[in-house]
Amino acid sequence: MESTAYGMRVRVPLSYDEAVARTTAALKQEGFGVLTTIDVKETLQQKLAVDFRRYVILGACNPPLAHRVLQSEIDIGLLLPCNVVVYEDGIAHSVVAAVAPMTMIELVGDNPEVAAVAHEADERLRRVLASLDEGKVDR
Amino acid sequence: MESTAYGMRVRVPLSYDEAVARTTAALKQEGFGVLTTIDVKETLQQKLAVDFRRYVILGACNPPLAHRVLQSEIDIGLLLPCNVVVYEDGIAHSVVAAVAPMTMIELVGDNPEVAAVAHEADERLRRVLASLDEGKVDR
Repeated sequence: MESTAYGMRVRVPLSYDEAVARTTAALKQEGFGVLTTIDVKETLQQKLAVDFRRYVILGACNPPLAHRVLQSEIDIGLLLPCNVVVYEDGIAHSVVAAVAPMTMIELVGDNPEVAAVAHEADERLRRVLASLDEGKVDR
Repeated sequence: MESTAYGMRVRVPLSYDEAVARTTAALKQEGFGVLTTIDVKETLQQKLAVDFRRYVILGACNPPLAHRVLQSEIDIGLLLPCNVVVYEDGIAHSVVAAVAPMTMIELVGDNPEVAAVAHEADERLRRVLASLDEGKVDR
């Protein structure tokens, strides 16, 4: 797993469709439902008539964590849900990336409850990506 | 308009429903379509059976800006779309808040094209909130 400026990322030997399916299943294992799905390729095609690689933005929400953090900081909805993206990356490979809540939280300042929730969300998302990364070894 | 650690915010003398409608219209004026809508109250009721104030997370996307920034940095989908939240706040009042892309962009590092797009998105979202704020004067 690779860390980026605001996220974490794995490249997996999976087709785009399979990567989306496995990511959704792995998120569910960690208590994240997918509340929103933006098909970037389709959106750019429809709105701008331009071609783009297959790319989806999944809005992943762990309801108990969301409830906790919203009770502590009402504006935190601006940083919810946790985005996870999947895009095609070369032949039969895909990239799965997730926001790193612990990085995002640097923006929020000194709210210990927000930091605690971000820490838990961060660990869960890292496990999601790690499980996809480990899947790679089996292939 | 008030600046927060990661966003901007106005409190307006509008009912929640009216605030959502006016925000959506003001976003459209600045080229942002609402791609996703998360009804936070309904989601928390359904998933956790808890009561929460009326609260929506709108995922606002300006397609030309999104396309530009995605071409420059493929993982930037983790920070898209721009979230705008509306929630009830006292009797006949609502809060409208938007992420501040120029703040978020501090996370991304030194990509001039990303910074240019963030700057434009930031200015547009500020105009959206300013237009709602000015509306207050008329009432």
